[in-house]
Amino acid sequence: MRRILLIVAYDGTNYHGWQIQDNGDTIEGELNKAINRLTGERVEVIGASRTDSGVHGLCNRAVFDTESTVPADKFAVALNSFLPDDIRVRESKEVVADWHPRKCATHKTYEYKIDCGEVANPMLRNYAWHVRGPLDVNAMKEALTFLIGEHDFTSFCSVNGTALTNVRTIIDISLEVISGTYNGVLENVEPGYDEKGRLISGQLVIRITGTGFLYNMVRIIAGTLVHVGMGRFAAEDVKSMLDAMDRTKAGPTAPPQGLTLVKIEDV
Amino acid sequence: MRRILLIVAYDGTNYHGWQIQDNGDTIEGELNKAINRLTGERVEVIGASRTDSGVHGLCNRAVFDTESTVPADKFAVALNSFLPDDIRVRESKEVVADWHPRKCATHKTYEYKIDCGEVANPMLRNYAWHVRGPLDVNAMKEALTFLIGEHDFTSFCSVNGTALTNVRTIIDISLEVISGTYNGVLENVEPGYDEKGRLISGQLVIRITGTGFLYNMVRIIAGTLVHVGMGRFAAEDVKSMLDAMDRTKAGPTAPPQGLTLVKIEDV
Repeated sequence: MRRILLIVAYDGTNYHGWQIQDNGDTIEGELNKAINRLTGERVEVIGASRTDSGVHGLCNRAVFDTESTVPADKFAVALNSFLPDDIRVRESKEVVADWHPRKCATHKTYEYKIDCGEVANPMLRNYAWHVRGPLDVNAMKEALTFLIGEHDFTSFCSVNGTALTNVRTIIDISLEVISGTYNGVLENVEPGYDEKGRLISGQLVIRITGTGFLYNMVRIIAGTLVHVGMGRFAAEDVKSMLDAMDRTKAGPTAPPQGLTLVKIEDV
Repeated sequence: MRRILLIVAYDGTNYHGWQIQDNGDTIEGELNKAINRLTGERVEVIGASRTDSGVHGLCNRAVFDTESTVPADKFAVALNSFLPDDIRVRESKEVVADWHPRKCATHKTYEYKIDCGEVANPMLRNYAWHVRGPLDVNAMKEALTFLIGEHDFTSFCSVNGTALTNVRTIIDISLEVISGTYNGVLENVEPGYDEKGRLISGQLVIRITGTGFLYNMVRIIAGTLVHVGMGRFAAEDVKSMLDAMDRTKAGPTAPPQGLTLVKIEDV
């Protein structure tokens, strides 16, 4: 018996999230089916991040055990021939038998993308949150500094969360206005600002690295930062939101399609 | 009666191209329906570029005549409320009564995107052509220099074309390997090269500006350049392809999803 690790990229648009469920297709379900078709074995992969419906992944991890004789590094190509084209195994390799993708120390990085402008870019509708703006990007950048470090993120956690503790560490968080010719999917428009220096057209990417995240945490951070950008909160309000340990004090949960798991690093 | 110009962006993935047809949804058909629902009038918009099935547009132009009293600049917002979210009117304005989007002098710019790598990026499957590589980017850059200027592009025109002359002028053509963090839809991988300096992972964008294009011309140029990159043609073969005036001498027609109409400029 060998344990195989898959590095998996997917466009989450057409899935009900990672985790298998009775109603609707899931990334995990598609992986299980493809492995079954390849090996004849019934397996249930274990994933590193159970991303939500509509959320994307460039590098999620999944492991399973197999008796098959397929060489470890050939699983990627072999499984891709059975998978739908919005799920791709980028890499496959053997790991030790007790290796568990949620029990190893990692840094995870998520990106949350915002399409700011009067009219949404239709090519980004499944990959960004369309926000009309204007957005005070400097206020958003000031706000995010309060989130760095170890905090109780109860105010930034969906009430459906089941974690034992809501203390988490954000290692790094940044916000970037994407400029230049090739923003996102082909877009040839430079970012635009109003007379007060607020963003009125362009794309924003919030990038957050941490050791682990609570349920909906990145999306609530994104929603809160956008509301800071709109002037509904002051930047320093984020500090009192953290102190309140009350979900109702923070901003809304940003929609799922802007979120992508972009990196998992072993530490 | 006023003539209204719409600037239209669309994700072509779910459409049978711009031009209305009996089977399947089209961009033109959706615009006609939305205008009908807004004004009660039956109109047929005239488009600047009749893009093919699966091809995208960021700035196509459509005009129609109306008796309605909707202010010209309000058509954009009003029509967007009736349009599906993969078609957006970016801007609307009144133009003179005889203005025709295919009878004014313009420069059109198309981009063709290539996703080079062992495994396709699933988030780009509808927006790029996946090519395994390796690709000799320098040879591709040399090849495209032969295409600049006025030429008979018969070899780069689908045999289904109906143009009176196949002479066209390419004003500018460039090829760029996209580097950095935010390539295309969120992608955090730097371009990779093999020991011979050939691209093995990363994205390429071919950008072509001209006064007009023959049927499938940009896609045949993209297909030919990729085959130069693969070593199936030498860069200088492109010159003899032009001279041959024979479609069978050039490379294959690249698939539609990599193509986007990104700019139309009046000259």
